[in-house]
Amino acid sequence: MLKIALAQINLLVGAIDANQNKIIEIAQYARDKLAADIVVFPELSITGYPPEDLLFRADFIKKSKQAVLAIAESVQGIDIILGFPEQIETYLYNSAAVLRNGKIIKHYQKNALPNFGVFDEQRYFQAGDQSCVFAVKNTAIGITICEDIWKKGLIEKNKVAGADLIVTLNASPFHAGKIHQREAIVCQQAKETEISLVYVNAVGGQDDLIFDGASFVVNAKGNVVFRAEEFEEQVSVISFDNQTPIQNSCATLYSKLSSEYKALVLGVRDYVHKNDFQGVLLGLSGGIDSALVLAIAVDALGADHVEAVLMPSKYTQDMSNEDAIIEAETLGIKHHIIAIDPAVTAFTGMLSDLFFNTEIDTTEENIQARCRGVLLMAMSNKQGKLLLTTGNKSELSVGYATLYGDMAGGFAPIKDVPKLLVYQLAKYRNTLSPVIPQRVITRPPSAELAPDQRDEDSLPAYSVLDPILEMYVEQDKSAKEIQAAGFQLADINRAISLVDKNEYKRRQAPPGIRITPRAFGRDRRYPITSGYKGSI
Amino acid sequence: MLKIALAQINLLVGAIDANQNKIIEIAQYARDKLAADIVVFPELSITGYPPEDLLFRADFIKKSKQAVLAIAESVQGIDIILGFPEQIETYLYNSAAVLRNGKIIKHYQKNALPNFGVFDEQRYFQAGDQSCVFAVKNTAIGITICEDIWKKGLIEKNKVAGADLIVTLNASPFHAGKIHQREAIVCQQAKETEISLVYVNAVGGQDDLIFDGASFVVNAKGNVVFRAEEFEEQVSVISFDNQTPIQNSCATLYSKLSSEYKALVLGVRDYVHKNDFQGVLLGLSGGIDSALVLAIAVDALGADHVEAVLMPSKYTQDMSNEDAIIEAETLGIKHHIIAIDPAVTAFTGMLSDLFFNTEIDTTEENIQARCRGVLLMAMSNKQGKLLLTTGNKSELSVGYATLYGDMAGGFAPIKDVPKLLVYQLAKYRNTLSPVIPQRVITRPPSAELAPDQRDEDSLPAYSVLDPILEMYVEQDKSAKEIQAAGFQLADINRAISLVDKNEYKRRQAPPGIRITPRAFGRDRRYPITSGYKGSI
Repeated sequence: MLKIALAQINLLVGAIDANQNKIIEIAQYARDKLAADIVVFPELSITGYPPEDLLFRADFIKKSKQAVLAIAESVQGIDIILGFPEQIETYLYNSAAVLRNGKIIKHYQKNALPNFGVFDEQRYFQAGDQSCVFAVKNTAIGITICEDIWKKGLIEKNKVAGADLIVTLNASPFHAGKIHQREAIVCQQAKETEISLVYVNAVGGQDDLIFDGASFVVNAKGNVVFRAEEFEEQVSVISFDNQTPIQNSCATLYSKLSSEYKALVLGVRDYVHKNDFQGVLLGLSGGIDSALVLAIAVDALGADHVEAVLMPSKYTQDMSNEDAIIEAETLGIKHHIIAIDPAVTAFTGMLSDLFFNTEIDTTEENIQARCRGVLLMAMSNKQGKLLLTTGNKSELSVGYATLYGDMAGGFAPIKDVPKLLVYQLAKYRNTLSPVIPQRVITRPPSAELAPDQRDEDSLPAYSVLDPILEMYVEQDKSAKEIQAAGFQLADINRAISLVDKNEYKRRQAPPGIRITPRAFGRDRRYPITSGYKGSI
Repeated sequence: MLKIALAQINLLVGAIDANQNKIIEIAQYARDKLAADIVVFPELSITGYPPEDLLFRADFIKKSKQAVLAIAESVQGIDIILGFPEQIETYLYNSAAVLRNGKIIKHYQKNALPNFGVFDEQRYFQAGDQSCVFAVKNTAIGITICEDIWKKGLIEKNKVAGADLIVTLNASPFHAGKIHQREAIVCQQAKETEISLVYVNAVGGQDDLIFDGASFVVNAKGNVVFRAEEFEEQVSVISFDNQTPIQNSCATLYSKLSSEYKALVLGVRDYVHKNDFQGVLLGLSGGIDSALVLAIAVDALGADHVEAVLMPSKYTQDMSNEDAIIEAETLGIKHHIIAIDPAVTAFTGMLSDLFFNTEIDTTEENIQARCRGVLLMAMSNKQGKLLLTTGNKSELSVGYATLYGDMAGGFAPIKDVPKLLVYQLAKYRNTLSPVIPQRVITRPPSAELAPDQRDEDSLPAYSVLDPILEMYVEQDKSAKEIQAAGFQLADINRAISLVDKNEYKRRQAPPGIRITPRAFGRDRRYPITSGYKGSI
């Protein structure tokens, strides 16, 4: 019987010492408590994923190698498979090492380097072209890393090289539905090549990326026979009898909404903790976006670490304040009320000569939003708390947000959540316990920056806007194709031209959590200066 | 005699229609006025460079191809070589097409795809593996694109394929000293392979990148025999007698300071014009940074398109206001004075309960900077003028700047200019005509956000800080290596730890002009969430 431990753990990018200590601790646990023969860690476990341009630093690469050797030295009596950036002559590889009794006995260089979407691996790494097989208890184990198994041929190559079983180290980021894609690909590979496969994924938040765990084992018939929890650290052990996994215990997969919500909670928790903030702060408007962000923040950090401020203006309706207070009280968080009028009046006075005889326009709306930004940032600076900004993906797409105003903040939890999904997630959260007042969900959305303002005064209804945005932003569809899908050209052109001309705002937006197949940020790289017009 | 026209032109990324029209116009001019047999345009001339993720749009790729065909149709009687993104089956290539009498007679797929620094070409393109040679007037011309000629072997490959002469299409971005590197590489290639080479570069600003032109021709002995102007559009024609260029006229190269200054001017001009702004606006503090940015803006756009605001506080010294007014008057720009005290007082009052019994700290400094940000953005919004932010690279490196305060703005002209270079450029500008008062250059730098504040109270002297930053940020040197270069460990650790922990500020900074070998932005991609500590 061969026992393989799957170390689905949460590592911190760049923190080589801390990662080394954590790997040592888990390897000892796998050896001593789980009686494992092998323990497998995620891709680039020494550095965390993705280390980005830290990989260009010679000191960083050298220290990574030293950490691998220190782990080999510290934990003997178990084979450890981990990921690290490997310098060979002048080239850097995304590698896996097999450590046994103090030595690196085998090393593998990732063959397939993803350079699309959020991935830039060809910026850093040379592709390997060898397979790597090593033997434990008469079982020949082939090693692959993440993208390798999404390609045809590399599992077959391992089998030809003699592998009886495949182990794959991963840092595979979440988006809604990704887990199904991932398991389908791996199961098909296993079935086609008639080989069992152990898939170990990272877990945790890293800036905009969430690694969702859900490590799994597939047998040679292509069936998932074990699955670890999603969004949680878990060290599991699986026994193999003659290369056949004998466990049959699979964590139930979460629903789409449930997994999105868990991703958002994990993303906030890890951004706050990994960046050493004591807590978070946000503006609470009585609208749906801040209500959802508040619930996520409290679920991530606990009520004691979340603080909210209501900042009403003369355009704020009473029900907005009432609902915001109900939200804060329901969740048991500290909250304050600061009316913004004195600052708005001061700025209006200071600008009165310059603005004499000009029309009221969005300038005056932006001043209100920016006064709120100044207040929130002052509180953030004074207390060392992270300011969460509460804008959603629909707003960010069309620029329906004020730069340095409601866009001010260090982290944007629902940046990649379209408005319709904000409503769905709010309703989903209320099924766990009622925290968002019904009226917040049913009233028409408004920025409350002008009298009787409603989002739909200047934007298409979200039921129209959101599908258009998904087709344009996430799927690269043209206006004509969107029209063919049944939308009005006026709505399409309005939405698309706003997306096109608001790239400059998005460029200065804080990072936020990616939950769709294409988020703004490293996933969608558009020029600001651009003559491209998607509208027709 | 073979006549080749070098079309060093300024194109707009994404503006396929406008680029098509411009290419047609220049090709007709080359044929009719210059009697050229061939006209060569820059790399990806149809789309501008770099088109980034626009390349993922099927409509964009299709339209690019249509533009190529339209150009072929429109201009006959001259061979046109231009760059375009070429779809072949499921692959996209960075290609060049040779157009003759209405048809694409040859096409070449770039072999070497840069995926480092500011380049992400492997994100979009498949590498070609063929060379491409075509004949005009008994001369066999080989085509290469940009990175191709930085690699060993590709010129040789063209020669083997029969080329008598090489034409290379480029979009090679500027940094100080790049032109010498570029010419040295190309001259060496020409000499080693004994072949003449025509190098056509793009010119113009595109977000953070400057393409500096300076197209050139090298003879088979490796001597530059023609060079076009730097930083300007120019269409030149060179005659070849038996593959030997017969011209001998080289534009004189600018000095380092002069080329940096010209790059900054071109960068501001193109960002403003290409993004359709009517003019720019900036805060004028009486300090050296805003003085330099003002001079650049006026040189780029003319005094009529530049407006400044003085926003004194109780910590602003009289000489700061005096000097700022002198700068504005010397350059003949419209300026306003708005004291920030009413807004600062309003915020202080609004926050007095919350901040009761807390110590004065940088929070209060940031409030002042952010009040200025609100004023400037209000003016920008009301007038549709672009707000320039005036921070330099040293500040941005160590986070000595207020997010949403002095960092507010759409474009950051001197973002990649270290403080010592700011002084040098200010002195250089004064040699052309005196626009920056001597006192602004000689007085110690201060943010003037607290009584008697000086930058050097909280930072190492710039004469120490700047070289440390260059080694750490641009050269990836470790603290130990910097210490070995003769700096004090306390200064090194202070500087490095500030760089490490201020990535979050840089992520929300506006784009600015790259003039060094490594700017912040797409050129240096660091995680915000990071356990890496460069200090020791």
